[in-house]
Formats: sequence, C-alpha cells, structure tokens
Amino acid sequence: MPSQTAVTLESIKQPIQAELDAAFQELSRIVRSDFSMINDVNSHLLKLRGKLFRPTLALLAARVSGEVGEREATLAAIVELIHVATLVHDDSVDHSALRRGQPTINSLFSHQVSVIMGDYLYSRAIVELVDLDCAPALKVMSRVTNEMTIGEMRQLQSHDGLGFDERDYDLLIKAKTASLMSGACEVGALSGNAPYREELRKYGLLLGMAFQVADDLLDYTGSEAVTGKPTGLDLKEHKITLPLILSLPSMSTAERDRVQALMDDPDPTEEAVEEIVGIVQDRGGIKAAGERASELAENAHDELEGIPASEARTALVDCITYAIERRR
Amino acid sequence: MPSQTAVTLESIKQPIQAELDAAFQELSRIVRSDFSMINDVNSHLLKLRGKLFRPTLALLAARVSGEVGEREATLAAIVELIHVATLVHDDSVDHSALRRGQPTINSLFSHQVSVIMGDYLYSRAIVELVDLDCAPALKVMSRVTNEMTIGEMRQLQSHDGLGFDERDYDLLIKAKTASLMSGACEVGALSGNAPYREELRKYGLLLGMAFQVADDLLDYTGSEAVTGKPTGLDLKEHKITLPLILSLPSMSTAERDRVQALMDDPDPTEEAVEEIVGIVQDRGGIKAAGERASELAENAHDELEGIPASEARTALVDCITYAIERRR
Repeated sequence: MPSQTAVTLESIKQPIQAELDAAFQELSRIVRSDFSMINDVNSHLLKLRGKLFRPTLALLAARVSGEVGEREATLAAIVELIHVATLVHDDSVDHSALRRGQPTINSLFSHQVSVIMGDYLYSRAIVELVDLDCAPALKVMSRVTNEMTIGEMRQLQSHDGLGFDERDYDLLIKAKTASLMSGACEVGALSGNAPYREELRKYGLLLGMAFQVADDLLDYTGSEAVTGKPTGLDLKEHKITLPLILSLPSMSTAERDRVQALMDDPDPTEEAVEEIVGIVQDRGGIKAAGERASELAENAHDELEGIPASEARTALVDCITYAIERRR
Repeated sequence: MPSQTAVTLESIKQPIQAELDAAFQELSRIVRSDFSMINDVNSHLLKLRGKLFRPTLALLAARVSGEVGEREATLAAIVELIHVATLVHDDSVDHSALRRGQPTINSLFSHQVSVIMGDYLYSRAIVELVDLDCAPALKVMSRVTNEMTIGEMRQLQSHDGLGFDERDYDLLIKAKTASLMSGACEVGALSGNAPYREELRKYGLLLGMAFQVADDLLDYTGSEAVTGKPTGLDLKEHKITLPLILSLPSMSTAERDRVQALMDDPDPTEEAVEEIVGIVQDRGGIKAAGERASELAENAHDELEGIPASEARTALVDCITYAIERRR
C-alpha cells in the first residue's frame, strides 16, 4: 500500500534533487535561441518553473535502475520541455489567461506567439533527443507526444455530451496525462541495463491515470481557496469526467434530465452547477471515482514490487500518494 | 542558366510520377488514426492534395543520387506531411479562411482542432521518421522543423516596421521556406551513397529562397485573377518584403513618410496600398527583387553542375524556372 503519511514534493525530490537542478539547467540551455523574441518567451516560461513532477519521475526511475548521469538529466529536461510545450498549446486552445498563477503565453504575448512557441519548444525537444543518439528514448518520446495530441482531440470530444463513457474517459486520460508520465518513467528506466523498464512504464501509466482521476475529482470536492479553481468548473465547461460518468447509471430520469439541461445551457449558473455536483455526490459518483483512483494507485504500487528497497524506491511510492492526495 | 521555355509541374514530376503517387499513398497511411475525429480532418486534408512540390524535390534528388525505393517514398511523404502540418498551424495563426481554394481546418472545424491537428500531423511525421531508422534523415528533418518555427516567429517580426531589413528578410525566408525545400533535397540526396548531398542541400536552400522572393514579388506584380490574392495584400497586412526593403533607400523623405503612414494605419485603403506599390515600382524595388530572384536561381543552378545529365537532373533545373516563374 502507498504510504499514509503526508508526503510533499520536496521530500519526493530529495533523492535526486541535485540531478533535478541539473535537468533544469539543461532545460534552460536547450530552449535558448539566438532570436530575441523566442528568448523573451523562454524567460517567462523558465521563471514559472513549475513543479517538475515529470522529470522527477524520470530521475527516480533512473536512480532505481542504474547510474544517473548527464544523459539522464538531459532526458529529464526533454520530458519537462515536452510537457511545457503541450501546456503552451493547451492554454492557447483553451484561451486560458492564467497558468500556475501567472499569465499564459497567449495572454501575455498573443495567440500567434503561443502556437508558434509550442511548435518551437516541441521541435527543440526532438532535436535534442536526436542528438542524444538513444534510439529507445526517441521511440518512446515520439510515440508519447503523438498520443498526447490524440488525447487533446479526445478532450474536445469529452464536451460533446453524456454519451462520453468510462471507456472514452480511460482512453482520454491515458493519452492526455498518463502517456507522458509513463514515458518519463520509461526513459528514466533505460538507465543501467534497464532492469525494470516494463514495470516502470506500467507504473507511470497507472500513476498518471490515478493522477488525472484525482485531478478531476478535485473539481467536485475541492474548495476554491485550495485548488485555485472554482468547484464545478469542468461541469460549467460541459466537460464530462469520471464522477459524473460513474453516477449517471444511478440517477433518476428527472436527475439525468437536469444534467442534460446543464449541458444544453451555453452558460450555466453557479446554482445549476452546484445542483449537479450535489446529485453526483448523492448518487455515489464522487465515492466511486475515489475508489477508482485508489485502485489505480494500488496497481501502480504493485508494479514496484520487484524493485529493491532504496530511498528512490520509497520516493516512487510517495509519488503515488502525492498523485492522489495533492490539492493541485 | 535555367531553361527559358515554360515548364509545368506535370513535366517536372514526369521522371518520378509513379514514386510520387506511392509517396501520396504513404502519406494517407501515415496520418490514418483509429480515432474518427482525426480521420475526418485527414480526409479533408488529403482531398486538397496540393502541388506536392517538396516531395517532388525529394524524389528527384533521390533519383539523381541512386535508387528510389520504399524508403525514399516514405521520406517524401514525411516531407509533405511536415509541410501540411505547418500550413495547418499557419492558417490557424493567420486566421486564414481559405487554402488552395478550400476552407482551412480552422474555418471548417475550429481553431482548437487546427492547433491539435497540426501537432498530431507533426508528431506522426516524427514517429514515422524514427521508424525508418535513418539517423541522417532524422537529424536533417528535426533541425529543419525547428528552423521553420523560428521562421514563423521572424514572420511576426516582419510586421513590426521599416527597421526590418534585407538581412532580417534573408533569415526569414531561409527559415520559413528554404529550410524545408533544402531538407527535402537533402533527405532525397541520401539515396545511394549520397554522392551529391551537400550540393543538393545548397541547391534546395537557394531554390527555396528564390521561390519565396518570387512569391513576395507576386504581391507587387500579380493580378488577382492569376494569383488568387489581391495585389498588395502583404502591404495591407504591414508585412515587409524584399521589393519594399530594396526600394526604401531610393525613396524621398516624403515617400518614406507615406510608407510609414500606411504602416501606422491599422486598416489601410486600397488606394493607399496602390500608392505604395507605385512608389516601390518607381524606386526600382520590383526590378531589384526580380534581379535577386534571378541571382538566387543562377546560384541554385550552379550547385547542379557536377551532376551528370539525366531526365531527373533536367527536372531539377526546371524546378528553378518553376520557382521563379510560377503564378502561385
């Protein structure tokens, strides 16, 4: 079972903190350009820094597998760079104004700049991967980035109505979120003679799915002060996620009609959203989604079974707890 | 010297027409997805087909270098796929409604779909390149795609005012247009034992620069019926191109002030645009830009010198004529 004590990102990063700092330095080097407009955007992106959860996964996976050297730091930087590139495009697609409490590239510069910068960052990541001359890592990361674009497309589909079911949701979160976490673990796991490559790939996939289910749950349970997002934002945007999907079969016809009415309303009121959050809660959707997150977390934990005890292995276990208990 | 008789794309394609058809089939295979939304967009993109000038370059370069087999057809398909991916993002960035006389992805589907589909197509191209297991091609194409994003950023800068000079313009057209044509020729040139790799790389670069100068000239010389674009559209959009850059030094202060006034006007009238087109013409900008296109064309031709006579070599020469004489 994942540890029950409160874990922090700081404690998780502890076994690979120096390598993570090196990876962040690598990231700054990789994105640098001799064209000033690009560096202006880079400066803003690097200032945000973010939680670096994905490169942390890559480095911990590397640490339990073998040596953690320059190649691993570069791979971890590339993983984060691909993550940042997708965030830049996500914000552009969603017309989001804020990210990590700071203005997004599309709001600070322009929509045009954000589309082009996403392309720049992603293609820089590929150039760097090619330079590393590590065919398995290139194979993993190119597949993962393609899966993520399919996930983005599935995300658009998740706004299309109540026909979006648990299978669609699983495909969505695997592609959108879990694929990159899985890829991060898998490229890290290439260290040494890659003793746990398949286990860590699966661990990352299950962890990523648990991470996204927990994220979607926060929209139904979190408070604005804690999550930085108003409760029910997904519903407001007609985004179908697991708590709603799992409560639909237990709803009365009248309740389902209320949900459909909200989906048909281009701009639902706070009250309408709160009402549906209440129905989802009453019909067991929040509990069921929580159970699904725990199940995924346990399955992720099982994948670590064959890895000998170490600080890094403990941190990988703690990543599971972090994924399902964090408040964004 | 490039041939002076009228050349057509059809005659240029003749030596590699069968291989080009195979490349287009490859393209259809590569973009296929098991997700219906993506296939809907693909169907639209494949219907457009386009001129396939870049894969034509790749296959002709391969034909003068060695065998043209499956690998070359796949590389040609990847070149076109990267081109299409950038067009999808370009149209999204520019909010263009039409491309090749057909509705763009952003107008037919949505802005969101066009950003995501560009990412999908580009990442599919990389997956396919990785599968080909041809390190030099991967190196060339990853570098080229990154250069193209920098070109897009430089394009934004070209709207920023009269400080955008000939050096900036050269960097822009190299990155935006010539890099992919150069890359197409270079990956084609890897065929056999790559006897003309460096020559064909340079040929593609010079050809691509000539192509873009000629394209920008059409905005000052072409008629709407022929080009599908109203004369002076670049000026209307405050885009600084070579004819204007080369005429600025010969302008009087009063004329330069007129140009500046147009740049300061968010929505210049047809008359104001026509006036500046006239000034650029009178101050020799159109003539000078035409001379620059011819000079680039001759330099491109020089790179072919060491390649023995063949149908494919003649077609490469004709590509130069096509690049500078076409009417879009």
